[in-house]
Amino acid sequence: MTLYAAIERKVRASFARQGFMATLNAELVEVVQGRVTITAPITQAVSQQHGAGHAGLAFAIGDSAAGYAALTVIEGETDVMTAEMKINLLRPAIGAELRAEGKVIKAGRQLIVVQAEVFAGDKQVALMQGTMVRA
Amino acid sequence: MTLYAAIERKVRASFARQGFMATLNAELVEVVQGRVTITAPITQAVSQQHGAGHAGLAFAIGDSAAGYAALTVIEGETDVMTAEMKINLLRPAIGAELRAEGKVIKAGRQLIVVQAEVFAGDKQVALMQGTMVRA
Amino acid sequence: MTLYAAIERKVRASFARQGFMATLNAELVEVVQGRVTITAPITQAVSQQHGAGHAGLAFAIGDSAAGYAALTVIEGETDVMTAEMKINLLRPAIGAELRAEGKVIKAGRQLIVVQAEVFAGDKQVALMQGTMVRA
Amino acid sequence: MTLYAAIERKVRASFARQGFMATLNAELVEVVQGRVTITAPITQAVSQQHGAGHAGLAFAIGDSAAGYAALTVIEGETDVMTAEMKINLLRPAIGAELRAEGKVIKAGRQLIVVQAEVFAGDKQVALMQGTMVRA
Repeated sequence: MTLYAAIERKVRASFARQGFMATLNAELVEVVQGRVTITAPITQAVSQQHGAGHAGLAFAIGDSAAGYAALTVIEGETDVMTAEMKINLLRPAIGAELRAEGKVIKAGRQLIVVQAEVFAGDKQVALMQGTMVRA
Repeated sequence: MTLYAAIERKVRASFARQGFMATLNAELVEVVQGRVTITAPITQAVSQQHGAGHAGLAFAIGDSAAGYAALTVIEGETDVMTAEMKINLLRPAIGAELRAEGKVIKAGRQLIVVQAEVFAGDKQVALMQGTMVRA
Repeated sequence: MTLYAAIERKVRASFARQGFMATLNAELVEVVQGRVTITAPITQAVSQQHGAGHAGLAFAIGDSAAGYAALTVIEGETDVMTAEMKINLLRPAIGAELRAEGKVIKAGRQLIVVQAEVFAGDKQVALMQGTMVRA
Repeated sequence: MTLYAAIERKVRASFARQGFMATLNAELVEVVQGRVTITAPITQAVSQQHGAGHAGLAFAIGDSAAGYAALTVIEGETDVMTAEMKINLLRPAIGAELRAEGKVIKAGRQLIVVQAEVFAGDKQVALMQGTMVRA
């Protein structure tokens, strides 16, 4: 097994243990070095008061995508935890599905700065910036 | 009906329309002027990879608590939307239930700056700071 | 005078009124539609305790670069104010000069979401994400 | 010398090395366990385009106050650096002087979550939330 296959396996195993991702019917659609994409359907079960996707849905899949992007750049059995994350909502999350693309901005010795962009179709609905810590 | 009763009714009606809060089994436990408390059980259905509550759970109820705190200080039919929100995770969300207390820091003409503290039992697990915009 | 010349003139006139930019010996080096670059020397006068540039220096020129980027996408005499801004520091600000590149992510009716990247030479030292409000 | 006297001495020595604080005519007015207050005059030299204090001034003294609050809870020669910081501006910084009160929210093994409130007279002009990392 190549190093990369080992990393993808680590990410997929961790994702499978996140009960919240299953509840959101989220799917881990892409895992590459420093970049992870997660999708989730926008349904009534994850809506805010006007029927659009709740900010918490965009946050949840964006946070996981960013965290797993961080995990792809760490060797061995070390895990990462979210230290902090900020989200700007750009427009209502309207459409069939949200897609969160997480990526690594800077991997330091202790901290990994990450970013996530969240889209509904071809429209960006959120931009996120945060910090993962090796745990 | 007093003004305050009207505000509480508006908050409760909006909360009831948030499908995501139902999915999280969240409960609107207190609505007072400028301050709203929401709880949600920590279960496998909302877990991260180690079984603690997912950051997205703390974010979702904290964001709603902060948003509804903002709604209590606005008269009439105006609604609010999250413009942006930041969360710092202080410790893993371990316990039976999360409790998010949202409050208004400053209500301006266009923007309402809010804060939320999220607890598991008597331990604070997250601190949030953000901006709601009149919509 | 073209529309663009009018916008650049508005940005340069506002920058000239920011006393803080003069104190920092900051320079407005580029103004294009949706993107503004500001530089400032890293000297003892703007240092933190180890002699690198203070986080407040990166923030100050990044915030102004992002704010002026927002101003380039607004017509007429409307001004913008910083509603909120977040900065992640990626590495110490060491070198002769800091360069902040601000850009517009999404210009809405009330709010303009902006980003700034701050560099020392070819190394990125900070990433910023925030919100400008029409004033 | 008591432990506390040693901590205050460490904070005051570090503050004295921050050239930026001298440029801002900032003063370290209070150092107690987990809480530090810094003031700075609002003058033309630190103004934004309308003559109020620049967001970068509030950020700079708030960031230093929060960082030094973190330093008061760390023993020995370890230093702290700002990993990230967010600021919400609540109203224009108008008056004779800004006063930033930094405090520790949670001191962890690697990270220290901090908050700062910035005032002009009796009006709060900014709220800040961020993360210091042991360095």
